[in-house]
Amino acid sequence: MDANDITTDAAFLADFATMSEFGATGDGGVDRQAASAADIEQRRWFAGLLESHGFTVEYDRIANQFGLLELVPGAPYVIVGSHMDSQPTAGKYDGAYGVLAAAHSAFRLKEAWEQGAVTPAYNLAVVNWFNEEGSRFAPSMMGSSVYTGKMALETALAVTDHLGVTVEQALADTGFVGTGDGPQAVGCAEIHIEQGRLLENAKVTIGLVTATWAASKYRIVIKGEQAHSGATVMEDRHDALLGASLLVVAARRLADRFPGSLHTAVGQLDVYPNSPVVVASRVTLLLDLRSGDEAVLKEADEILASAIAEIEADAKVSVDMNLSHSWGINPYQPEGVDVSRSSAEALGLSHMDIMTVAGHDSTNMKDIVPTVMLFVPSVEGISHAEGEYTTDEDLVAGLAVIAEVTRRLVAGELAPATSDSTDKELS
Amino acid sequence: MDANDITTDAAFLADFATMSEFGATGDGGVDRQAASAADIEQRRWFAGLLESHGFTVEYDRIANQFGLLELVPGAPYVIVGSHMDSQPTAGKYDGAYGVLAAAHSAFRLKEAWEQGAVTPAYNLAVVNWFNEEGSRFAPSMMGSSVYTGKMALETALAVTDHLGVTVEQALADTGFVGTGDGPQAVGCAEIHIEQGRLLENAKVTIGLVTATWAASKYRIVIKGEQAHSGATVMEDRHDALLGASLLVVAARRLADRFPGSLHTAVGQLDVYPNSPVVVASRVTLLLDLRSGDEAVLKEADEILASAIAEIEADAKVSVDMNLSHSWGINPYQPEGVDVSRSSAEALGLSHMDIMTVAGHDSTNMKDIVPTVMLFVPSVEGISHAEGEYTTDEDLVAGLAVIAEVTRRLVAGELAPATSDSTDKELS
Repeated sequence: MDANDITTDAAFLADFATMSEFGATGDGGVDRQAASAADIEQRRWFAGLLESHGFTVEYDRIANQFGLLELVPGAPYVIVGSHMDSQPTAGKYDGAYGVLAAAHSAFRLKEAWEQGAVTPAYNLAVVNWFNEEGSRFAPSMMGSSVYTGKMALETALAVTDHLGVTVEQALADTGFVGTGDGPQAVGCAEIHIEQGRLLENAKVTIGLVTATWAASKYRIVIKGEQAHSGATVMEDRHDALLGASLLVVAARRLADRFPGSLHTAVGQLDVYPNSPVVVASRVTLLLDLRSGDEAVLKEADEILASAIAEIEADAKVSVDMNLSHSWGINPYQPEGVDVSRSSAEALGLSHMDIMTVAGHDSTNMKDIVPTVMLFVPSVEGISHAEGEYTTDEDLVAGLAVIAEVTRRLVAGELAPATSDSTDKELS
Repeated sequence: MDANDITTDAAFLADFATMSEFGATGDGGVDRQAASAADIEQRRWFAGLLESHGFTVEYDRIANQFGLLELVPGAPYVIVGSHMDSQPTAGKYDGAYGVLAAAHSAFRLKEAWEQGAVTPAYNLAVVNWFNEEGSRFAPSMMGSSVYTGKMALETALAVTDHLGVTVEQALADTGFVGTGDGPQAVGCAEIHIEQGRLLENAKVTIGLVTATWAASKYRIVIKGEQAHSGATVMEDRHDALLGASLLVVAARRLADRFPGSLHTAVGQLDVYPNSPVVVASRVTLLLDLRSGDEAVLKEADEILASAIAEIEADAKVSVDMNLSHSWGINPYQPEGVDVSRSSAEALGLSHMDIMTVAGHDSTNMKDIVPTVMLFVPSVEGISHAEGEYTTDEDLVAGLAVIAEVTRRLVAGELAPATSDSTDKELS
């Protein structure tokens, strides 16, 4: 192939290097929280890339960015993509790889179509979902949640960051807020880095995602009483931060009881009044339990609940636990896994079935249309950190598979299961 | 006495009710962080109160607010007062009581002087020290630290709050920044609520403060590595928040080893990146140890240091401990304690010697001039909380004592120990 050919692996890697410059941290990572300057700039660049390849760029009302290619006038769309926003000081592969791989898959498909090598059954849309990470504006997967009807548009637009800026305000004047609901979906595909070590340990290139781990996500408020952190005698203290700390430690000990089958975490914790000389009266934290085994998760939930009374007595505080989100083992359509398996096999690439621990936009999409999810290996499993890394060889192997899956979906190989496959209502 | 007399206890309580309205939380407390709108408004009101009683209001370059009464032209000043800024959602007595008691002591002295009942040796200044609490702008006791030469003016003015606003910017346009260094001190007195239960338990009205507890204050940074809080396997995590939580718990267990003689606290703790789905890579916290027994404090410091290695191994993190401030048992001048003791006795009020666990502006002042520190009881020891309470009876009893101490200091009863008592250099 000609090195200048827009559909070569070299062209893909060059575009990936360019896209990684937006919000670059200087330490190999990126910082592109949703609707930040870097995110906005990168979206403008991406719109230009899509348009230069003959795609029509559109936005829905929650700023999901679509690059549309009409192949069958009036037909619904196969939607392929991921997200370009990131965590603070994050890696450059998370989300962004999947969006660019989708774009290059679409470029390849367009070229094949122009050469008469594809008979499309559907149209094709590349997508860059808005705010998948949820670090600036919680919750995560906001754009795909609104698209799939799981979250109300008004609720999403009213979410504030820690400075009180709403999503609506942050998006104003960006040109990213459309007036419609985006293209009508008939199928979906996403490729992402694994964010774990299973593929690397098994020396396998392509992960065929069969299901999402079960999860229980708690929002917990620990209430104590403000007191002078020096003068107040220890017995009189009702220390919300002590209660919170006991809970963080308890969550970790809980994971240690189920080695390999339970992940627990507290990533966000806020102290009030957070003054050097005041015993905290309130701590708010988010605690997650995740497992690939629903029985393990249930047992872990119960152990956690039973630990609360002890923590309340120890720190003389009250603990309010609110199960904010939870889900069981959540399978992708087996027919979609078959499409990705046969695509990997056709390309001679090693593959294995795998579950995803993290949520993805495809986790939302699979509830409304048949959806394919693919992984490529993460070196040392590093994720949400500047040291995140996937080899170029694996990146282009993944690109080949998602391009093949895209071709098959557009050709109608993965037929919707129901007659009204484009219904956006949730099952 | 006439109820309209400005020097009655009723007039004092009426003024205290008025001053408690500034930044009132609606729950019995106040929120008047340094240079906030409520603090600025209250300072304007206080300047008006002082001026209406014939005092000249002046500010030094760090915005300490002085009400000056010249009795002996050219003589140095006895400085009496405390601070009116507060912690967030704090009590209304902390600091504010001491400033208003100083002002009313000064009004009483002025009246007595006008009636020829006082032969002054020195002039008198009421003071409202700037930013004693240090919650918005760290460190605490900023105004008195600059006044006593313990902190450079430039350093103080450059301190930022969490939004990046400097002290200098926050004070601009307030009219509170003077051009000089404030009146020259010859002695000092402060009255404050105890913020503990010793007076209440002993059923004693007046505490004669003999010394400050020893303290070790650490700024601690726990370093881990960012990772996906869901996908990353537990063994690969280097969780800074887990390390911090283990440290918070360890500090509390340390206090439990020395019942009654060691206070430990973590009041401030900040997590980075503090995102729901990212394992924290960095936590910064402030940990204090305080004791009335230097040997206990030394042993506690050693136990804490020896616990660090275990915490580092447990959470796979590194812990950097920096002893940011420390001091030993720090006595007030015994001659000053004698003045307060004989004043309480002359008024027929019960009294006892007491140590202060918390720092006060007088803790700074006693290092440059003879200084008297007095306490009144705190009901249930509640402090730095909206439920802080001292009875009116105790408030006016304390006022009587600080007024008597002020009279004696102005009369020259507590002579400076050295020939150059007004030297602001530290001993």
